[in-house]
Amino acid sequence: MNFKAILYIIGFLLMLTGLFMLSSIIFSILYNGNDIPAFLISGIGTSTIGFLLWIIFRKAKGSEIRKKEGYLIVTLGWLVMSFFGSLPFIIHGAIPNFTDAFFETISGFTTTGASILNNVEALPSGLLFWRSMTHWIGGMGIIVLSIAILPFLGVGGMQLYQAEVAGPSKDKLHPRVQETAKRLWAIYVFFTGIETILLLFGGMNLLDAICHSFGSLATGGFSTKNQSVAFYNSAYIDYVIIIFMFIGGTSFSLHYFALHGKISAYFKDSEFRFYFGFISLTVLFTTLFLFFNNSLSFEKSFRNATFNILSVLTSTGFAIADYEAWAPFFSTFFLILLLFGACAGSTSGGVKMIRYQLLMKHGILELKRLVHPHAVLPVRHNGKAVPNDIISRVAAFVFLYLVIFGIGSFILSFLGLDIKSAMGSVAACMANIGPGLGLTGPVSNYSGVPDLGKWFLSFLMLLGRLELYTVLIIFSRAFWKE
Amino acid sequence: MNFKAILYIIGFLLMLTGLFMLSSIIFSILYNGNDIPAFLISGIGTSTIGFLLWIIFRKAKGSEIRKKEGYLIVTLGWLVMSFFGSLPFIIHGAIPNFTDAFFETISGFTTTGASILNNVEALPSGLLFWRSMTHWIGGMGIIVLSIAILPFLGVGGMQLYQAEVAGPSKDKLHPRVQETAKRLWAIYVFFTGIETILLLFGGMNLLDAICHSFGSLATGGFSTKNQSVAFYNSAYIDYVIIIFMFIGGTSFSLHYFALHGKISAYFKDSEFRFYFGFISLTVLFTTLFLFFNNSLSFEKSFRNATFNILSVLTSTGFAIADYEAWAPFFSTFFLILLLFGACAGSTSGGVKMIRYQLLMKHGILELKRLVHPHAVLPVRHNGKAVPNDIISRVAAFVFLYLVIFGIGSFILSFLGLDIKSAMGSVAACMANIGPGLGLTGPVSNYSGVPDLGKWFLSFLMLLGRLELYTVLIIFSRAFWKE
Repeated sequence: MNFKAILYIIGFLLMLTGLFMLSSIIFSILYNGNDIPAFLISGIGTSTIGFLLWIIFRKAKGSEIRKKEGYLIVTLGWLVMSFFGSLPFIIHGAIPNFTDAFFETISGFTTTGASILNNVEALPSGLLFWRSMTHWIGGMGIIVLSIAILPFLGVGGMQLYQAEVAGPSKDKLHPRVQETAKRLWAIYVFFTGIETILLLFGGMNLLDAICHSFGSLATGGFSTKNQSVAFYNSAYIDYVIIIFMFIGGTSFSLHYFALHGKISAYFKDSEFRFYFGFISLTVLFTTLFLFFNNSLSFEKSFRNATFNILSVLTSTGFAIADYEAWAPFFSTFFLILLLFGACAGSTSGGVKMIRYQLLMKHGILELKRLVHPHAVLPVRHNGKAVPNDIISRVAAFVFLYLVIFGIGSFILSFLGLDIKSAMGSVAACMANIGPGLGLTGPVSNYSGVPDLGKWFLSFLMLLGRLELYTVLIIFSRAFWKE
Repeated sequence: MNFKAILYIIGFLLMLTGLFMLSSIIFSILYNGNDIPAFLISGIGTSTIGFLLWIIFRKAKGSEIRKKEGYLIVTLGWLVMSFFGSLPFIIHGAIPNFTDAFFETISGFTTTGASILNNVEALPSGLLFWRSMTHWIGGMGIIVLSIAILPFLGVGGMQLYQAEVAGPSKDKLHPRVQETAKRLWAIYVFFTGIETILLLFGGMNLLDAICHSFGSLATGGFSTKNQSVAFYNSAYIDYVIIIFMFIGGTSFSLHYFALHGKISAYFKDSEFRFYFGFISLTVLFTTLFLFFNNSLSFEKSFRNATFNILSVLTSTGFAIADYEAWAPFFSTFFLILLLFGACAGSTSGGVKMIRYQLLMKHGILELKRLVHPHAVLPVRHNGKAVPNDIISRVAAFVFLYLVIFGIGSFILSFLGLDIKSAMGSVAACMANIGPGLGLTGPVSNYSGVPDLGKWFLSFLMLLGRLELYTVLIIFSRAFWKE
């Protein structure tokens, strides 16, 4: 194992983390916050440690990074950043408990948005900015990870696009990764800018506008308000966020093509059509239900339905209404949605549309195969036949995901949560959504979960974010055998 | 479509059903019941209709039965038998409502054991016998179905044993099916006899002994008592039933080998070891929990744990304790168990051990495959490599099962059940277990489910019993194109 190269890269990531922390001071100053010392200490400390690692192991620069190092860098990177990222909260004292601070920070970096804060608004502006910034950094990491790095590692929902994007023909990180990363980040920054401006027009102040942009594009979900987006009670703001959650849940490679003039790329993509169709159907059903049963105006029904369904599907987790209060069956409805996720190659988490779509097609084809046992009937995606081993790998993923969901629900139940809250929390953390059901539902938070549960859920956030295998492989014996 | 052959066989099945109905009169007479007329009318009516169909279409005897006819015969057979089987309840007036009577009867024939009766003990003895008899007939059907017919149709968990058992090399029912059926039925009758005698020794009267034998070997779960097996409050009876539920949940081909002197066949079978290991682990955990937390004696803890876990896993559904009252997390625990099922080739329902086992192995192998991307690492079962297409078909099944479970839970929620009861009912009916959770839990029944829900659950019982595809294929367009 090339530990030197791993530490070299971790050092680099820590330097960046430290600098991002220091940048939060701008908001501490702008809003006269008492969190300047916390940022100075943690920011300088973190970047110094990062710098030292970077200097000490600089000889490892350019040395070969194989897949095995790749898994470790990604997993450790997220962990170490979450550890250091929690320092401003602890040093300032806003979240004095390490468990809570770590939970909040890994929830940020994994773009989950599950919070343990009962009173978000008590946080000084710098910390609020840093909290949302962790989403944005995490989202950046995820885009590159899912489109460029994970396919190289053989993990993730983008296996189908593998050949087109990262070309993992050799056991070495492809040089095009950097190029791809730059392009995608440009799109990400561009969308963040647009949304911030649109939210400023809606009457938000600069801090809130930036934080909510970070929260929607990274499909994170941290808000600066206790009531989340419901606080603004503004149709305009709701629709802006709806649009950008949708964008955040769409593959960034499609955005790349669209921004280069090929708008049709969206609807040529089978997964996008499935995503769009799935949203349309569920929104239609919910809108009609709310309109006819909960005596809301049609517009308000449509907005409530769209916002909350997109918030869960894209794994953002913003809230403008307590969907569990609409009707009892919406608990079941949203529990099912909590297991979905949006498109591969987006910032969203969860199983993702493409996997369900492929397995759905595969399951239905079984009927045809029974009638015509000798016919060769492959699953097709974007017009191409999908090799059988990809289907069986996708199945392995979904199965493992559901098994972990089951075991996780049991563990949370065992720790004292009722069955609905347990299943909701596990589903919401694994899929990096944030709010779950019941105790941890959209009008509540994770402060009531016992500490052991918080650690376990933190682990699930990382596991889900890194598409299970990136983390699990580290625990396998085969991995450590040279 | 060879409809004549289908009707010929359905006629034959109805004749048998009618004769079985008439045999219930023995218990009406023995216990001086007022249900003799009900049995005479329905028994003679059913066998006459059966006889007429059989005579009218007798020319179809020996005509070729292809797979397509096979699916229809199996699905229609179960439906038609459930329809006629409900007549004694309706004619007698014990269950005056057709929806309820059909639910109770299809619950019997699919060996589910979900009941809508609030007071079972009010039923006359003949009807009680008939109710349990539907389990026994259903169990007979399932053994042959799962070991001989479904593999021929290309459906079910026994695909692995296909070649050994039914040899479906040609598109025609194998002549060995009849031979296999006879052997397995002999074992089934043998075990039923033994259990009845053992239960008589435990102090049950003849009716109760026979009914509980039917209920355990068919892994059905109808009892003659409102409190189910808890009524007897007897360690001896509990252990006898534990043993025979376990036998009912084990593959009958293994019993065949064991009864021919190869006792080692059990532990040579990979699925059996998994089944046994899974039971041991869950029983150990539950016993220790009950012993240390619920102040029960060790024996009572062990018995409660074993009885209830086996009852759910084997899809029997007898109860000696309200497991939801042990601790809140047992709701989650048993919800997970409700999705399992025991061994393929047994009378148990559900996904079954072998499928989970194969997918589990497949999921774990993924980690190895990531480390060694060029190695060929097939899943192994009983020492043999399992072809990739079987894995992907198993995955399609489990996925479809869970999707239907999800949609079903949503529908039941929509009909007014709370999330726990909705999921519990759907899981328990699909897996042919019987009691679910909450509203339909072990100390309750299905009388509180709205009529539409009862019909939907009846459909799910059939769907689960016939391993999804046998039923679903009939709704596909490919099936009806000649």
